[in-house]
Amino acid sequence: MRLTTTEFPCTDSDKHDVEGMNRGLLFRQLFEKTSSTYTYILGCQKTREAIIIDPVKETAPRDAKLLNELGLSLRWALNTHVHADHITGTGALKQLIPGVKSVISKAGGARADHRIEHGDVIQFGGEEIEVRATPGHTNSCVTYVHHGGRMAFTGDALLIRACGRTDFQEGCPQRLYKSVWEQILSLPEDYSIFVGHNYEGIEQTSVAEEKKFNPRLTKSEEEFVHIMKNLNLSYPKQIDRALPANLVDGELEEKHEAEAK
Amino acid sequence: MRLTTTEFPCTDSDKHDVEGMNRGLLFRQLFEKTSSTYTYILGCQKTREAIIIDPVKETAPRDAKLLNELGLSLRWALNTHVHADHITGTGALKQLIPGVKSVISKAGGARADHRIEHGDVIQFGGEEIEVRATPGHTNSCVTYVHHGGRMAFTGDALLIRACGRTDFQEGCPQRLYKSVWEQILSLPEDYSIFVGHNYEGIEQTSVAEEKKFNPRLTKSEEEFVHIMKNLNLSYPKQIDRALPANLVDGELEEKHEAEAK
Repeated sequence: MRLTTTEFPCTDSDKHDVEGMNRGLLFRQLFEKTSSTYTYILGCQKTREAIIIDPVKETAPRDAKLLNELGLSLRWALNTHVHADHITGTGALKQLIPGVKSVISKAGGARADHRIEHGDVIQFGGEEIEVRATPGHTNSCVTYVHHGGRMAFTGDALLIRACGRTDFQEGCPQRLYKSVWEQILSLPEDYSIFVGHNYEGIEQTSVAEEKKFNPRLTKSEEEFVHIMKNLNLSYPKQIDRALPANLVDGELEEKHEAEAK
Repeated sequence: MRLTTTEFPCTDSDKHDVEGMNRGLLFRQLFEKTSSTYTYILGCQKTREAIIIDPVKETAPRDAKLLNELGLSLRWALNTHVHADHITGTGALKQLIPGVKSVISKAGGARADHRIEHGDVIQFGGEEIEVRATPGHTNSCVTYVHHGGRMAFTGDALLIRACGRTDFQEGCPQRLYKSVWEQILSLPEDYSIFVGHNYEGIEQTSVAEEKKFNPRLTKSEEEFVHIMKNLNLSYPKQIDRALPANLVDGELEEKHEAEAK
């Protein structure tokens, strides 16, 4: 499936401006402090169409303001998966910016305007990202790859020197190991990796770095499974609030609040 | 003055690799959550020499580890000014990585291995940054400009949609207004601006954006001065601990602790 808009058709030659990558793609990384979540804006400089990856409900007004100031028209609001540690901002952005369509994987059972699967392509102006299914942390996990910018957005499948936990929400370490090695670390080594969270203030990594320094994924599958089964992590703080809401574009709380009035 | 190392001479033609800017310059932004401080690593991909801008004492071990993993040799640890809201990591990095030299403006009266002034150039491998004096938040404020990457590191002189306060530490709104307009917003509009702090999770801005959207700097000088004199900000939490330490590379606390033993 190819998600596209026909308002601003771009030819292939538009995609790579001679002045360099930054002329074609406008890229911004944003941070939400409470859940240490990264949000990403990618925009086509030529047509001003844009996507946002993993917005957070509380920072959706900030994102909408910045998109407006940058002169970008938000088309797609994407989730990398059904999050357990914060409420997605896709529903809030749909309310703030008319016409925005939410996107999530078919595999997670969540509601969205478009439900994607492995191999789909999402186009915004002259730019596009490829959808790669990377389940294991959750069934719904996908990685978005922007080949033009040599970037992958891995959500919680692969984190910086870490990876998403596999002890709840359909987690499966064997499946995660296969996903990361076959779909992410198989990319060229110079591809930058932008993750869903980091708790130490590190903002990006690369395929080369994780192949060399990831303390879990550089192990054999057997050792990896052993590590993942013995992490003894505490129960996620926001899960009981976040999971039900994230199955419906993060809009559950507003509905409950409205019903309570 | 030109701060340079002669170990890895680069010719001019090395500076701009045909495969694009990212092949020449390795760039990483880092974040320290408690003080919402951004730290920047810039490295020459060819020679692996690097600089770091505004490291924080508490995150210096993280920075040293990442530099090591990236195969970078840190040459200069730079401060944009004498900070009041956190302790600089330049002293800690000097202890962690032998041979590193600390750098700060001559104007602030602080100790460092190299004390720089307006017009100086700091070279690392085939890359270089220009020093521009931008006083007004403090006397010691400088902006580092990397023309190759079309980036400016403004410290607290210019913040995203804001600027550094001018009510202590030699602050002077008239001086800040002049500094920002003459030395930062006079750069080409596509230059990216990387700041000292942001409290909303926004990681970068540009000359074009701040010329259009900065709510203080877009005003007349008279209005700007009025705004800055009426901010009524609270006393900075860490100032009494940070200021004396930052006059001596952030090493004061360790000395006091050592003397107390």
